[in-house]
Amino acid sequence: MTRALRLRTIADVAPDVASGAVSARELTEACLDRIAERDGDLNAFIAVDADGARAAARAADDEIAAGHCRGPLHGIPISLKDLIDVAGSPTTAASNVRPRTPVAADAPVVAKLRAAGAIVLGKCNLHEFAFGTTSEDSAFGPVHNPHDLSRSPGGSSGGSAAAVADGMSFGSIGTDTGGSIRIPSAACGTIGLKPSFGELSCEGIVPLSRTLDHVGPLARSVADAGMLYDVMAGRTPRLPAEMPLPDRCRLGVPRPYFLDRVDPEVRRRFDEALARLGQAGVEVTEAEIPHAGDIAAVYLPIVLAEGMAYHAATLDRRPEDYTAGVRLRLEMGRYVLAEDYVRARRGQEVLQREVAESLTACDALILPTLAIPAPSLGVDTVEVDGHTDSVRSLTLRLTQGFNLSGHPAISLPCGRTPDGLPCAVQLVGRRDRTADLLDVARRVEAIIDDHGGHTGNAASDRVAT
Amino acid sequence: MTRALRLRTIADVAPDVASGAVSARELTEACLDRIAERDGDLNAFIAVDADGARAAARAADDEIAAGHCRGPLHGIPISLKDLIDVAGSPTTAASNVRPRTPVAADAPVVAKLRAAGAIVLGKCNLHEFAFGTTSEDSAFGPVHNPHDLSRSPGGSSGGSAAAVADGMSFGSIGTDTGGSIRIPSAACGTIGLKPSFGELSCEGIVPLSRTLDHVGPLARSVADAGMLYDVMAGRTPRLPAEMPLPDRCRLGVPRPYFLDRVDPEVRRRFDEALARLGQAGVEVTEAEIPHAGDIAAVYLPIVLAEGMAYHAATLDRRPEDYTAGVRLRLEMGRYVLAEDYVRARRGQEVLQREVAESLTACDALILPTLAIPAPSLGVDTVEVDGHTDSVRSLTLRLTQGFNLSGHPAISLPCGRTPDGLPCAVQLVGRRDRTADLLDVARRVEAIIDDHGGHTGNAASDRVAT
Repeated sequence: MTRALRLRTIADVAPDVASGAVSARELTEACLDRIAERDGDLNAFIAVDADGARAAARAADDEIAAGHCRGPLHGIPISLKDLIDVAGSPTTAASNVRPRTPVAADAPVVAKLRAAGAIVLGKCNLHEFAFGTTSEDSAFGPVHNPHDLSRSPGGSSGGSAAAVADGMSFGSIGTDTGGSIRIPSAACGTIGLKPSFGELSCEGIVPLSRTLDHVGPLARSVADAGMLYDVMAGRTPRLPAEMPLPDRCRLGVPRPYFLDRVDPEVRRRFDEALARLGQAGVEVTEAEIPHAGDIAAVYLPIVLAEGMAYHAATLDRRPEDYTAGVRLRLEMGRYVLAEDYVRARRGQEVLQREVAESLTACDALILPTLAIPAPSLGVDTVEVDGHTDSVRSLTLRLTQGFNLSGHPAISLPCGRTPDGLPCAVQLVGRRDRTADLLDVARRVEAIIDDHGGHTGNAASDRVAT
Repeated sequence: MTRALRLRTIADVAPDVASGAVSARELTEACLDRIAERDGDLNAFIAVDADGARAAARAADDEIAAGHCRGPLHGIPISLKDLIDVAGSPTTAASNVRPRTPVAADAPVVAKLRAAGAIVLGKCNLHEFAFGTTSEDSAFGPVHNPHDLSRSPGGSSGGSAAAVADGMSFGSIGTDTGGSIRIPSAACGTIGLKPSFGELSCEGIVPLSRTLDHVGPLARSVADAGMLYDVMAGRTPRLPAEMPLPDRCRLGVPRPYFLDRVDPEVRRRFDEALARLGQAGVEVTEAEIPHAGDIAAVYLPIVLAEGMAYHAATLDRRPEDYTAGVRLRLEMGRYVLAEDYVRARRGQEVLQREVAESLTACDALILPTLAIPAPSLGVDTVEVDGHTDSVRSLTLRLTQGFNLSGHPAISLPCGRTPDGLPCAVQLVGRRDRTADLLDVARRVEAIIDDHGGHTGNAASDRVAT
């Protein structure tokens, strides 16, 4: 079957936009139609700027008609997590704490995307202030998973992942402090990239933890994520046809921590992916991160203390304006002692060294992204492998370590559970080598791609076509 | 009059060592004699390795006799703050908390100094764990100022400054977390250099605050400090004859904070120095560090929290093994909240930017090093300009800001009070441009040098010859 226009990848549709075969207006209307049809269920958007998007699409089409194409993002409708400043609209952070007055200027990453021709459709819903992994606690109500409306899309960039998976936008920009791009990507079957720490400017983005925050793309293919990333990094995006796949690559599996307490179905999809990679000639070895077991203990004081340093004054004045869940979690930050924070930062340095060391013997680490399938909305704990654990700690378990270490990491869809929920693998590359990680990820994607990651394709017509 | 051998500068004596006119043994014996004669009064040394020094001096002389000179530090006796590992002796940190067992290896900076031919005489007394500015709280008793035995030599590298000022060693290596090289240099009339943050390895040195700690030299001339610094930085040291003085330089005076609450005599010497610099053709302008008034508030939570992160376990087990003063100050670190620490780190970033900005319009900042002359031992508060303030905050007032900002800073003697106590100016240079700062400092030294900084010279025969 032919993939619906709204579900094509940027790489696939870009040449048609450049040639005039498909107009930016058609792409924009396809997304707006889908939003109108489906966002009542998903609640992926906080604000849709239909007029602005249509005007930008007309301008983009006029440029094409005049013989000027800005590149592969020309005329491509995208969405932005509503933590990121877009000129002319408020940045709500999904919170009643934030003013509802429009901000004056685009965040630098947004300005770069616009300059590359991307069309801003609107702002996506999220877990309030990005401080949660389910996108349930939002002043605008919970986001729903397009694969099962009773489930969370993951978070905190849940609206972005749902919008991309469901064909409401061709890509989205999210943020990732402990996994907030990768977790919803895994839960919704999209690609999610957290670049190397510090590569992309977080200016104009509401902070959660300044030493852990990253901004990055969610998309429907690795190539699409790569093009969005390239533009935000100030580079010229390249279509996949212009980029050879790497000949050889070696992947390291970091046992035991990262394969422990993983849902058996998720684990099965991961093992199948490893087998397929092996058959395709990818070398798979073992990797070691000796202090991986300390990741959660190191992560928590840092994110709590840095979150509190930002929120303390507001939390004192207007506690009732936070959602109960986020307020409770922020309040924990009041009791973190500085000596514990300082020790956690030392622990972070240990992890940085250990992850770097593990990557001397392989091109990338490979591990699951999310230890469990998308959790049901309203559920706080899940049982995995005989242990009952909080949804929060299970969802962060495999991703937060690479916020601490700063290494670039990408999540790719990797099959489904018998219930039809997406599973995902995560690849982690060397510091400041995000482009190399993207090359490895394209190779891995070509091998394990089940064409079932996002909704509305052959494997999931029942969800969305 | 001729300066006594033990009081000559390294730059002055080095050619004589190279030619064989003066032997390493003579230098070593001159220092050992002075220690024997005078350290009962000063208490500058915790341990003197006379046998080791004599053996090293013989070996150095043999090398010269065989035609091999390692450079300007060849055969030069130096001392080390007893916070720095020297193979074969314990690193006491002036504390009963530390084991009295010899350490196995030299700290990297010590290994480099030895490789350059320097002779290690012994380990200098200090404020316990470098956590104080008077060198009074030490398991080995207080250090006394060679210019007035009833006064503190400053701290925490008080023993190093006293040893260099009094001709017990030709140079010394100290550490500086809030001013611990520059404060005693100012109080004793030596040169003290805190290089740019991160330039010299702090490996093998007991930490106080890992984001503020620096290691650096104390010496009797800027050139000497420069040679010790060059060797520790892994570069070939150059004699001043090989280095032209910079033609022009522009100095910025950062008012008002850094000239506020300064003792009137110290201020008078500083103004006289500015006038002399102006007469000599140095351009003196105003500089601005808008948040200078926040320096102490930003510094305190950082040093307390990082100190506590290091000491907490020992403080729980063996509180009585700390001196009362240091224990009390460390205990304050227990109550620092992580949010306050995180905010202080943000404040630190603001100061880094502001100091960097102030240095775009001048080659170096010029300001006093120490707001007061060397304080009397046993005194906790001092009155300056009608305000009574603690000795600790007054001594740190003008130096700690550049630990926060990480900029290289050097203290130079600048006249005396009517009581004969040294005064000092401080120069602050651009980040990672310590060599440029040393050039400016040599020019300033040539203009303002009163030849009265260290003891035993024309201006202070009464103290020590």
